[in-house]
Amino acid sequence: MKKMATTFILPYIFLFSISSSGFSSAKITPRFPSSIVRPEQLSVSSQTELYEAKYFTQILDHFNYQPQSYRTFQQRYLINNKYWGGADKLAPIFVYTGNEGNIEWFAQNTGFMFDTAPHFQALLVFIEHRFYGKSIPFGGDTNVAYSNASTLGYLSSTQALADYATLIIDLKKNLSATNSPVVVFGGSYGGMLAAWFRLKYPHVTIGALASSSPILNFENITSPYSFTNIITQDFRSESENCYKVIKGSWEQIEETAMKNGGLEVLRKSFRICKNYISGGAIENWLSTAFVYTAMTDYPTPSNFLSPMPAYPVKQMCKAIDDPALGNDTFAKLYGAANVYYNYTGTAACFDLADDSDPHGLSEWTWQHISSFCVDYSNRAAFCKFAFDIEPRPNWITTEFGGHNIKRVLKRFGSNIIFFNGLRDPWSGGGVLENISKSIVAIVAKDGAHHVDLRFATAEDPEWLQDVRKREVKIITKWLSEYYHDLAHHFP
Amino acid sequence: MKKMATTFILPYIFLFSISSSGFSSAKITPRFPSSIVRPEQLSVSSQTELYEAKYFTQILDHFNYQPQSYRTFQQRYLINNKYWGGADKLAPIFVYTGNEGNIEWFAQNTGFMFDTAPHFQALLVFIEHRFYGKSIPFGGDTNVAYSNASTLGYLSSTQALADYATLIIDLKKNLSATNSPVVVFGGSYGGMLAAWFRLKYPHVTIGALASSSPILNFENITSPYSFTNIITQDFRSESENCYKVIKGSWEQIEETAMKNGGLEVLRKSFRICKNYISGGAIENWLSTAFVYTAMTDYPTPSNFLSPMPAYPVKQMCKAIDDPALGNDTFAKLYGAANVYYNYTGTAACFDLADDSDPHGLSEWTWQHISSFCVDYSNRAAFCKFAFDIEPRPNWITTEFGGHNIKRVLKRFGSNIIFFNGLRDPWSGGGVLENISKSIVAIVAKDGAHHVDLRFATAEDPEWLQDVRKREVKIITKWLSEYYHDLAHHFP
Repeated sequence: MKKMATTFILPYIFLFSISSSGFSSAKITPRFPSSIVRPEQLSVSSQTELYEAKYFTQILDHFNYQPQSYRTFQQRYLINNKYWGGADKLAPIFVYTGNEGNIEWFAQNTGFMFDTAPHFQALLVFIEHRFYGKSIPFGGDTNVAYSNASTLGYLSSTQALADYATLIIDLKKNLSATNSPVVVFGGSYGGMLAAWFRLKYPHVTIGALASSSPILNFENITSPYSFTNIITQDFRSESENCYKVIKGSWEQIEETAMKNGGLEVLRKSFRICKNYISGGAIENWLSTAFVYTAMTDYPTPSNFLSPMPAYPVKQMCKAIDDPALGNDTFAKLYGAANVYYNYTGTAACFDLADDSDPHGLSEWTWQHISSFCVDYSNRAAFCKFAFDIEPRPNWITTEFGGHNIKRVLKRFGSNIIFFNGLRDPWSGGGVLENISKSIVAIVAKDGAHHVDLRFATAEDPEWLQDVRKREVKIITKWLSEYYHDLAHHFP
Repeated sequence: MKKMATTFILPYIFLFSISSSGFSSAKITPRFPSSIVRPEQLSVSSQTELYEAKYFTQILDHFNYQPQSYRTFQQRYLINNKYWGGADKLAPIFVYTGNEGNIEWFAQNTGFMFDTAPHFQALLVFIEHRFYGKSIPFGGDTNVAYSNASTLGYLSSTQALADYATLIIDLKKNLSATNSPVVVFGGSYGGMLAAWFRLKYPHVTIGALASSSPILNFENITSPYSFTNIITQDFRSESENCYKVIKGSWEQIEETAMKNGGLEVLRKSFRICKNYISGGAIENWLSTAFVYTAMTDYPTPSNFLSPMPAYPVKQMCKAIDDPALGNDTFAKLYGAANVYYNYTGTAACFDLADDSDPHGLSEWTWQHISSFCVDYSNRAAFCKFAFDIEPRPNWITTEFGGHNIKRVLKRFGSNIIFFNGLRDPWSGGGVLENISKSIVAIVAKDGAHHVDLRFATAEDPEWLQDVRKREVKIITKWLSEYYHDLAHHFP
């Protein structure tokens, strides 16, 4: 542990906030500088071409037979039947198991489903996770839904999985397509849901593509240092100098902040707007940029968390290694931060107040609070989720397993692809080795966070094309087996 | 359908009450004539030799992160470590997933676990189902727990399975036995829970022996006539006359009941106590005897639902076929009823009032009420369970599957034994064919309701001994594979 700890690129505060809660960190919520257009507004294609939005009357509480169980809410799903071969042909249904956000955002960043739909003649369905986007219980009013523990209590992975089962079964019935095979897809937390859905609801889906899903990021299964360690590796792989500059910068920021007039030096160096500033806030602001850039270190220009060039980690290190900047560490860091926060070049200044920590990081308690809840206090739903996990630290592994996963699943279950890109900090908590013949790991050394699910581009490197080809081949096999069983054995 | 319907041995009212609700009927609650000692009081061995009772502080609501989620209750479990090889030897843990009743009753009728424990050096654990026996939430007060929908809402199979996972994981931790393999056992509804537990919690158990578990008794998967049809077959297999007498008797009872003084004729014929009587109540009383005798048509004397001789269906038909009784149908039926209600010969008269239908069968509504709830109104918890299923008729198949089970599980899951005895009316809703190499069906033509789980006796027929040998062999294989994987592949 010691050896690793000394190599971390991130400051102490960030290291601890990241490693605090495997669960909450799996549900990372991106931070958008206010000056930057959100990805929803920059869809690859126009939204009406991609899908139609519909609503399903969903049960609020699947597991308690109480009067309130019959309370319902409107759950949004997006549907595209342009490529579907139809129920008569038993053409497949591809379902994205939505994660922590507006489902349109995930749909627009899951081009793999659109790209492969014509080949598979697949119906596409993207289901929004309860409590996000437009799928807000309690009349759609977030003020009510997020108001307190008794309303937020219905926000849980187990309820979300039951939502997906209920919606899919009903949708198939309405389409007279009960025999159409369903394949589920998901990235990040959505990938965890996809994998768990295949494990818990094999009668609803024949297989799952779980991309960058850190299902082993709970309890002590994965080292708490894995996440930051991978980020360190990412930057170090570009240049030793890049790594050293970042690593050495935290002390310099802290020292400067404590000096007379130091905060104004920092404000000027990083073009911070004329309101809130602190040394810790600058560190946090920079750390966020490093973390999310490592996560989305895609080989082509992208706009998942923010608009970025291809290979953004390389671009950050290029800025840091710029010989023209001499020994000016802050100028180097500012250049790096601009890759993440200001690639479009439109930001006049950066506002730390929006995302500042209202409680102070010093009040942060290891056992109780996810850093993301401190940082993003307006994300009430997610934060409550993280908070409420705490009193039952073993619940996720009790419900979904994780310990000794190879031994447990070697003789149980089937048809799951776990994709991981090793440059993705979350990959440390992913399944990186084949478990059985049909529960397989696809690992891309140069891949980032669910890069396989993105729309294909002409510039995609060969390894990425190969990953997608393998995934298509495996899904094809699942479908063939299903049709074979249906036709020959159990018609 | 018509052809079958005409052969039913049971009267119209009972047929419909049985077929009303697959779910509730799976949770049949036996009816004990008040004059007969309950099986708990007649344990094979003394209770203290069999097990020690302990309590576990269990979470009331596993799925909603609400303040009330952290409410707990005391869940009882019985434990026997007399045969256990211990944690150091990785000796197995055999767990009975309790069903709808006092766990002591199930433990005492699951001799198979005690009989095989020395061979396997197994720790025995019997976990009581929430809301039954001494595992009553809300301070253990049934008046509160059963009082209304908001308290009874926590009674569900999904919550029960999460209870078992939570308790087992905690128990293993406390015994420093996290690597000891767990095998689950259950009969009837408990068998359904065992099978579902293996499917939903493969990380907690390596395999399940699900005895007489009608997991296909939902929606339209199994014919609603299957249950009564099997009972008809059972009696008809003894003698054609036996079948004909029973089948013809209902009209005779109804006609007699309508005659002047007819009820007194019935009272005298069936020795009904001097309070409540009606034609319908007599029919129900007789039907109950036929149903439960068919279910527990064991090859040796038993005391599961009531004290009975070996092959009690044969004994009933012997009474009905008694040439000394000539054409006296009521005397024949009375003789048959005595096999079930009065084998000990101590009943002075039979009290129909105890179990009479307080609402009237005429008020019985197909969509709402399980017949067992009408008959056994004091079983509030179970009845609420049945009632509340109704608004979501597809919930069980949504959560646990059932449709096309062979296709779904052929390439998913492993290590489940489905035992069924074909004389058991529940066997129609059971898994009667192998699904895969390790999800297997053991079918005994002459077997009754979870007969395999009973204590072995010197009089057990060879087929029953063979069934148990096969089960032991299969469980041995699960354990060997587990130890092999642990030692060689994933230590």
